[in-house]
Amino acid sequence: MYSSYLLVTIGRGNRMKDEDLFPEPCDANCPVRKTTEIIDGKWTTLIIRDLLSGKKRYSELLKSLEGISPKMLAARLKHLEEKGILSRKLFPTVPPKTEYQLTKLGLELKDVVLAMDKFGRNLP
Amino acid sequence: MYSSYLLVTIGRGNRMKDEDLFPEPCDANCPVRKTTEIIDGKWTTLIIRDLLSGKKRYSELLKSLEGISPKMLAARLKHLEEKGILSRKLFPTVPPKTEYQLTKLGLELKDVVLAMDKFGRNLP
Repeated sequence: MYSSYLLVTIGRGNRMKDEDLFPEPCDANCPVRKTTEIIDGKWTTLIIRDLLSGKKRYSELLKSLEGISPKMLAARLKHLEEKGILSRKLFPTVPPKTEYQLTKLGLELKDVVLAMDKFGRNLP
Repeated sequence: MYSSYLLVTIGRGNRMKDEDLFPEPCDANCPVRKTTEIIDGKWTTLIIRDLLSGKKRYSELLKSLEGISPKMLAARLKHLEEKGILSRKLFPTVPPKTEYQLTKLGLELKDVVLAMDKFGRNLP
């Protein structure tokens, strides 16, 4: 079944074969590598996921991201701010309030997170 | 320009608004979180990237993944095998040869890696 599908699509010449995917070595110029240097683990990905629905306060992120420590959250937010993925707005209230929002660049990660969401729905 | 586009699409009611994306907290049931527990960082992502074009030997992966240590490569391969993302085949040659291949589940990560590739192409 699968092999006949493959034959048909190769015959039509309109489908990229898997062998054509990423044939080059994964060096510093590799786009996937560049992305992994931004989304460099679980927490950065999950912060981006949370901000895709709109800006959030530090305390809201801390509450949503079950299991993250305040120190880890602060470090990952700083990393994402330095990479231009999110912006931070400080309100001089008492106590001070900080709001985080994805930048235009950060919003472009939507498709990555949506693909991860789709994959995760089939996991046990 | 952007706001009028938004008004039109909301008016039509046929487009998911960003506020509807991931409104729930990111707890243990969150699909994105489950995915990040498999693709848990740079090297796991890049191993999957390399295997999307077909099975590879340990030495080929070590050569392609610029900067990875043999110990790290072995650990990440073990992690991905335990998660059911790749399978390992040992050939009893001298020296022994080991080949790695994505499983059916592992191949389903293709869209995640393609989205990361697309995002990375716009990075400096």
